[in-house]
Amino acid sequence: MTNLEHLGIAVQDLKAATALYTSLLGIAPYKQEHVASETVDTVFFRVGGSKIELLAGTAPESAITKYLEKKGEGIHHVAFEVNDIRAEMARLRAEGFVLLNEEPKRGADNKLVCFVHPKSAAGVLVELCQEIINA
Amino acid sequence: MTNLEHLGIAVQDLKAATALYTSLLGIAPYKQEHVASETVDTVFFRVGGSKIELLAGTAPESAITKYLEKKGEGIHHVAFEVNDIRAEMARLRAEGFVLLNEEPKRGADNKLVCFVHPKSAAGVLVELCQEIINA
Repeated sequence: MTNLEHLGIAVQDLKAATALYTSLLGIAPYKQEHVASETVDTVFFRVGGSKIELLAGTAPESAITKYLEKKGEGIHHVAFEVNDIRAEMARLRAEGFVLLNEEPKRGADNKLVCFVHPKSAAGVLVELCQEIINA
Repeated sequence: MTNLEHLGIAVQDLKAATALYTSLLGIAPYKQEHVASETVDTVFFRVGGSKIELLAGTAPESAITKYLEKKGEGIHHVAFEVNDIRAEMARLRAEGFVLLNEEPKRGADNKLVCFVHPKSAAGVLVELCQEIINA
């Protein structure tokens, strides 16, 4: 894993949280994106070589909506950049980690992503992500 | 804030979690440190320009021991690097954020640190940190 690519934070009110993090970080967001496959709206900030991703659910079945109901606002996941997501998935499976998807799927911010079960990683939801290079 | 300096993860068993994260990240830790003022043992990994800090409490009164009793293992805090911690603390106070210490205090990894109350930051415990430059 080559970089702490981003930290995902689950929030109730994306507009209010965007204002709050703009003030906290002293940085304006560079992108908003709706991720239909995950039923979430996201806002991204750059901090050095990493990003902060604010996430709000857009439907009752959204994993973020369910997370907020159960645990409230807070850090939802950490994403690490990898050079070859399929190779990393195979390596982690061989080391006994439980992956939440069998194949890489398309995530926010032009990435292929795969999640590692929090029970495999001391309670932390870990995302692997690889930039999609358009041919 | 210039960098996502580290992510702090609260763990029950530091030895087991160190083995787990060595396997997960594919990287060996570069440092272990006992922080007497916080009654924690820590282990650090470098991932790109950021670090992962595993934290285990060493006394019942440790904030990490209490966190584990209440919430279990998982991401405890995120730390951002700042160039001038006193100036950032003054800026955040003026913007209405609640700080958990009045003055910067000495943290792990040769840093001056200050924490922002999670209620001020959408449920996230935010640490500001500044490298101590020895004269």
